[in-house]
Amino acid sequence: MNGGMISFILGSVLKVESALLLFPCIVAVFYKESAGYWFLCTAVLSFVLGYLLSRKKPHNTVFYLKEGCVTTAMSWIVISLVGCLPFYLSGEIPSFTDALFETISGFTTTGASILSDVECLSQSILFWRSFSHWIGGMGVLVFLLAIIPLSGGSHMNLMRAESPGPSVGKLVPKVRATARILYMIYFGMTIVQLIFLLLGKMPFLEALMITFGTAGTGGFGVRNSSIGGYSPYIQWVVAIFMILFGVNFNAYYFILLKRFRQAFDMEEIKGYFLIIAAASAMIFVNIYDKTMTAADTLRHVVFQVGSLMTSTGYSTVDFDLWPSASKVVLIIIMFIGACAGSTGGGIKVSRVIMMLKSVKRELNAYLHPKSVRTIKMEGKALNQGAISSVAVYFITFTLIFAASFLLVSLEGRDLTTNFTAVLTTMNNMGPGLADVGPSRNFGELSVLSKYVLMFDMLAGRLELFPMLVLFHPVLWKETWAGSKRKRRRSRREKRAAAK
Amino acid sequence: MNGGMISFILGSVLKVESALLLFPCIVAVFYKESAGYWFLCTAVLSFVLGYLLSRKKPHNTVFYLKEGCVTTAMSWIVISLVGCLPFYLSGEIPSFTDALFETISGFTTTGASILSDVECLSQSILFWRSFSHWIGGMGVLVFLLAIIPLSGGSHMNLMRAESPGPSVGKLVPKVRATARILYMIYFGMTIVQLIFLLLGKMPFLEALMITFGTAGTGGFGVRNSSIGGYSPYIQWVVAIFMILFGVNFNAYYFILLKRFRQAFDMEEIKGYFLIIAAASAMIFVNIYDKTMTAADTLRHVVFQVGSLMTSTGYSTVDFDLWPSASKVVLIIIMFIGACAGSTGGGIKVSRVIMMLKSVKRELNAYLHPKSVRTIKMEGKALNQGAISSVAVYFITFTLIFAASFLLVSLEGRDLTTNFTAVLTTMNNMGPGLADVGPSRNFGELSVLSKYVLMFDMLAGRLELFPMLVLFHPVLWKETWAGSKRKRRRSRREKRAAAK
Repeated sequence: MNGGMISFILGSVLKVESALLLFPCIVAVFYKESAGYWFLCTAVLSFVLGYLLSRKKPHNTVFYLKEGCVTTAMSWIVISLVGCLPFYLSGEIPSFTDALFETISGFTTTGASILSDVECLSQSILFWRSFSHWIGGMGVLVFLLAIIPLSGGSHMNLMRAESPGPSVGKLVPKVRATARILYMIYFGMTIVQLIFLLLGKMPFLEALMITFGTAGTGGFGVRNSSIGGYSPYIQWVVAIFMILFGVNFNAYYFILLKRFRQAFDMEEIKGYFLIIAAASAMIFVNIYDKTMTAADTLRHVVFQVGSLMTSTGYSTVDFDLWPSASKVVLIIIMFIGACAGSTGGGIKVSRVIMMLKSVKRELNAYLHPKSVRTIKMEGKALNQGAISSVAVYFITFTLIFAASFLLVSLEGRDLTTNFTAVLTTMNNMGPGLADVGPSRNFGELSVLSKYVLMFDMLAGRLELFPMLVLFHPVLWKETWAGSKRKRRRSRREKRAAAK
Repeated sequence: MNGGMISFILGSVLKVESALLLFPCIVAVFYKESAGYWFLCTAVLSFVLGYLLSRKKPHNTVFYLKEGCVTTAMSWIVISLVGCLPFYLSGEIPSFTDALFETISGFTTTGASILSDVECLSQSILFWRSFSHWIGGMGVLVFLLAIIPLSGGSHMNLMRAESPGPSVGKLVPKVRATARILYMIYFGMTIVQLIFLLLGKMPFLEALMITFGTAGTGGFGVRNSSIGGYSPYIQWVVAIFMILFGVNFNAYYFILLKRFRQAFDMEEIKGYFLIIAAASAMIFVNIYDKTMTAADTLRHVVFQVGSLMTSTGYSTVDFDLWPSASKVVLIIIMFIGACAGSTGGGIKVSRVIMMLKSVKRELNAYLHPKSVRTIKMEGKALNQGAISSVAVYFITFTLIFAASFLLVSLEGRDLTTNFTAVLTTMNNMGPGLADVGPSRNFGELSVLSKYVLMFDMLAGRLELFPMLVLFHPVLWKETWAGSKRKRRRSRREKRAAAK
């Protein structure tokens, strides 16, 4: 393991975080809130820690996928540990576990909250909470790659470990340029949504925070009724932008290059919009009655479907009150999730398409034993490795799901609560059903359940394997044995030098 | 498609069924029940139909996997359609849908019942209900292969389509001999259990029916309290035999050959018993309190774990009242299921082991990018095809599960009911939780839900693909086009001959 390199990157991440912590400070100064003091303290602490860790530039810049995974997982844990300090120190979230849960939920763009009343929080705390969605949406390390010239090494391994989706294609040959393009698109779309919300006469800070929550497909609201209290215009804006932020960003890059055909011909994009349309139609038919106009019903349906499909988690109605069939549709689209290469969570549309294709191939093998058995995705033939990776991802997802489901159920709540609590955190969704439904929150869960769900949020955001690698006993045994060997060697060398 | 061959096999299956229908006739004569008349009528009908279908011995005995799947799926549908007639005609189950549901549930060894009161049924009807478990447990076609010398063709395709598990190994080179050995073991173990139950002073017919339910891992009881009303001795006998019938029958064959080491070294056997022990231990710790002695608690726990793991579905207590954590353990072992090559259902232990190994391999690839990546099972290296088959099986299972879950939820019941109803039928388990829990039944469900669950029972019993192939539009389009082509050709030939 390249410890020097890992420490250098962790340090850089902390320095970036210390800069980001200055934004809520500005908000606090503007609103004259005492919480600003704690943001400043945390920023200083973060900078000092970051400085110490990244002081020594590593000589050895060799960086494998293993190091990429470990660095990514550790970065996310470290920024969460530091990021939760303002919540805790300011006393606005008195329990450390809760503060950490809220922060991890923010950075992983889950949006599951332990708070029952968000309207009593101060503006700077609310801002930091929503801002964490925006930071986590595109990824901290992608940001780092965009601004810091890391010399040597394969940075693709870092980006691959952090970006959502089965296969991260570099848009342009250089990783740094790819990261910059992604952030440019992200930033641009954020500005556009902000303008649309301001046109709907939303106050600036509130519009900014709602935009952060939408862009990162996070889902932290600034009002207790989530998006339910806003005008239909604003609800439509948020619904449409949630869906847009769930699109594979490669499509936007193609659009920027005026390669429209290529953008709209992507199988994943077509599948994504098809699923949204089908799910909306099914739920519309299921819930439409005379108590609401068709336009209102449609808005609520599209909003909820867009929110759950992209794993945002905003809501305009309490969908826990919808009939069973609608709830099952919602659970299914929660599993599917958004496109790969977007800010959304879930298993990802492209993986689901690949899985459907592999089933179709298997059936074809029964019908035509001699048929050719290649699977194509986006026009390219997939090799066996890519397909089995998708299958293994799905199996791993199920195993982590089962283990978490069991641990959370130790608390004794009903099955729907336990099941959807794990589902929404692993998919970085937000609210579940029953006790963790849109009108309830995660605050009442036990400490054990909260830590299990924190793990699930990080595992879900980082596509499972970085967290599993970090907590894999073999890694630590080998690292330990490696460092012992190194120490022994250096001792031997010293002795030899002394002789 | 080889229509002649398919019709010949279907006819033979019906002739076998007509013979099997004589057993409940004997019971009816003994108890002087009028239902016997309907059994006789059905037996005659079945024989006539069978005779008509199998009158012409096919010239062409070429038989591919496609034909194997279609024949298997159709056989199971046909025997269920005929087998449900006595229930319906005798008026003891007045609705045809319910009668069909009960019969499919019997043949597929599911054990999900639409009856709220089984104790009011006549003895011959009860006998046929339990007997269907025994017939379905080892498979009708396997039985056919054992007794009828089908000339030519690859019969392995029939056996592969009907037998549970990822890969059916022939025990001996000849298919017919393999089928005979399997039935011998099955028959022998049935006799042994019957003797043990008779030693517990159970009346003969009742002991026979309970043995049928255990041997087929079916789960139809003959009393409303399932096995709850019997003595602890009998409960232990049933518990142990349920677990024994869930073991891969290859192990028994090895034991018969005195190759004990080979039997006990099977990874699947070790995994199977390990899971049973672990699940029992977890539930024991979770539910043990002072209201019951440790011995009683242990008996109930082992019984329920054995019943759900092997997909039998007998119960001695209402496990729907157990705490959440125990219910989650039960749900997880329901998914896992019994060993391949046993009479039990579920995903199968060997598939779960292979999936775990593929996840381990993926993690190893992160840690040691250059490590060798073969997966071994039972000492043999698995090729990529076998592993991807398991993954595709799992994905297909999930897709059918999701579609059924959605369709069943249209009825508007709670999520737990819908979820476990689909789960228990697909795994050929029996009772679920909530509205379909051990103290309730499937009778109240809508007709649509019942047909969906019937499909799921058959799909689960036949390892998914035969049913999917049978209902695949491409198959019918091609068959239709093929027969049109044939007719056109024969017309052309006739015309040519006339000239």
